[in-house]
Amino acid sequence: MTAFSPLLTELFDIPAPSTAMDTALQHAINIKTKPPGSLGALERVAHQIGRIQRSATPDLARPTMLVFAGDHGVVAAGVSPYPQAVTAQMVLNFLRGGAAINVFCRTHGIELEVVNAGVAADFPSHASLVDIPVARGTQNFLEAPAMTRDQLETALAAGAARVVAHASRGARMIGFGEMGIGNTSSAACLMQRLTGLPLAACVGRGTGVDDDGLARKTAILERALAAHPATGDQPDPLETLATFGGFEIAMMTGAYLAAAKLGLVIVVDGFISTSALLVAARVSPAVLDYCVFAHASDETGHRAMLDTLGAKPLLQLGLRLGEGTGAALAMPLIQAAAAFLREMATFEGAGVSEREATGQ
Amino acid sequence: MTAFSPLLTELFDIPAPSTAMDTALQHAINIKTKPPGSLGALERVAHQIGRIQRSATPDLARPTMLVFAGDHGVVAAGVSPYPQAVTAQMVLNFLRGGAAINVFCRTHGIELEVVNAGVAADFPSHASLVDIPVARGTQNFLEAPAMTRDQLETALAAGAARVVAHASRGARMIGFGEMGIGNTSSAACLMQRLTGLPLAACVGRGTGVDDDGLARKTAILERALAAHPATGDQPDPLETLATFGGFEIAMMTGAYLAAAKLGLVIVVDGFISTSALLVAARVSPAVLDYCVFAHASDETGHRAMLDTLGAKPLLQLGLRLGEGTGAALAMPLIQAAAAFLREMATFEGAGVSEREATGQ
Repeated sequence: MTAFSPLLTELFDIPAPSTAMDTALQHAINIKTKPPGSLGALERVAHQIGRIQRSATPDLARPTMLVFAGDHGVVAAGVSPYPQAVTAQMVLNFLRGGAAINVFCRTHGIELEVVNAGVAADFPSHASLVDIPVARGTQNFLEAPAMTRDQLETALAAGAARVVAHASRGARMIGFGEMGIGNTSSAACLMQRLTGLPLAACVGRGTGVDDDGLARKTAILERALAAHPATGDQPDPLETLATFGGFEIAMMTGAYLAAAKLGLVIVVDGFISTSALLVAARVSPAVLDYCVFAHASDETGHRAMLDTLGAKPLLQLGLRLGEGTGAALAMPLIQAAAAFLREMATFEGAGVSEREATGQ
Repeated sequence: MTAFSPLLTELFDIPAPSTAMDTALQHAINIKTKPPGSLGALERVAHQIGRIQRSATPDLARPTMLVFAGDHGVVAAGVSPYPQAVTAQMVLNFLRGGAAINVFCRTHGIELEVVNAGVAADFPSHASLVDIPVARGTQNFLEAPAMTRDQLETALAAGAARVVAHASRGARMIGFGEMGIGNTSSAACLMQRLTGLPLAACVGRGTGVDDDGLARKTAILERALAAHPATGDQPDPLETLATFGGFEIAMMTGAYLAAAKLGLVIVVDGFISTSALLVAARVSPAVLDYCVFAHASDETGHRAMLDTLGAKPLLQLGLRLGEGTGAALAMPLIQAAAAFLREMATFEGAGVSEREATGQ
């Protein structure tokens, strides 16, 4: 795919964060009043955040969660134990504050926005809903590409625009979640095509298909991949996204790119969210430098996808819910990492003796 | 050891939480708007909290962290790369708000209290300091038991009293941290004697001894254990605590027992904190039913100690700092677990369709 709009082409060019402060950041971490390295993974995250923000006093103001919802034509083939109507029902549940992501965002002071990226239903207007559907669900990718190229562009730009809106209000940390019955099927196809791993390593139980359901889902996705054979050695990530994606996944891809472009700290959720990032990283690998990986989910394929991306997730809690829940649960840890770098005293400042081996 | 004061004897008798609500709690978890089991470890924690509080709408008000500090006579033998003075220096750092535990408690809205359990220094009075030292450090347990039986009783009762004070102010979740140069040596001896595991599996690098330092520390603790041979098949946990413990560890042991007795949700930190719990659990095994294990630390022996207790820690972040930092980092996750059980909508209440297999 070539010749995207200038705005999108600009978005696809993400600079890596500067490493100029790396030594200073490591020094700032080392002189805090604690044994060197004793905060483990939080020290790595603090260093990354400091690098992204070019600051030894990083600030993760206005943590924000965008949940993108969309429907999937492939659900007609029977890939999920839940009916498609659940996507819209869950969007209404989000708007009423009753879903897991609502509870976790309330508990942890995270701003939540729900984006109708392309659900097969209409919604009442609501302060928490951004109602910008690309269409009423994707095409069934067993029969046709999930979306047109125009729809893909619309979705990418819309996802990016939501991030710009939140960044302009002061958000410095952002996470992306999703809701879409059938979207583990989209994510599995994206993963298979872009990583080349065997399909069986990419397909999981999603919201909970049984053994028979898993075999049926795998057979359906095998057919889908065969219906859209790869061309060339390196599949085009955005063409692959248009073929197998969902509108919520495509908006997330645009959102990742925009968040990296704007220098936000990005918190990556589970299997679907990571599949959108996989596409974004194939477009512009430096997007990964802005990502903190929240968790390894229980969905088959998520850990392999994380390995492909060189990701070290913070949490292993056996989650497999989506909605951005893992990202919301990890945000307090990430805030703690930024806070220790920003606020902890130094050995010298606090008058605490260092180790005798390294002291005077 | 027998014939403790009636107050302590009462404390040693912890009832297991009632299982009468277990079925109702599992049902309440299952009807939330999410695929069954999809919140992984948080579902287990929510069930445990519901059982402890006998409620499907559990409440973890006033999360509280008590950090107990004490000095250790065995430091004179050269078990730590830091001088003993660091214990007092770090207490002052706590009081000025500059340590990691201060930062994490501020970030996560946790009330922090510092208890001088027996530091070899004097402190100015301070609103955050409870200054109740049993003595100015323990005896060197290479030469004598670390503390007398009277000192042990004093420490156990004082730790329990701090918990009672916070529970009476409304705390429903509490964690215990510690500061004491040399206290990984105490914890390793407690662990070896009470579990019977080889000493090498119990001794780690603490704040960061090198290979030579680790060999020297192990040899010193081997001598210490030999100097106080076990009597009988089952070592008496409180006699073992008096022999090898620290005042901060003994106060934590009393604090665990009191917190369980009062039905608080207890958040267990790292190696030292878990060693105090090991003693408490040998006194009254039901204390474990009130414990949520925050993390598996990087200190050698912590994971084996957790296995001994049948514990499933929430976090694996490579932490090895102590101070209660791992417990403070886990508290937001535990609050999220209680919150989803308390606040999430049900399928029926939210009008969300259930799985087709289990629906109509």
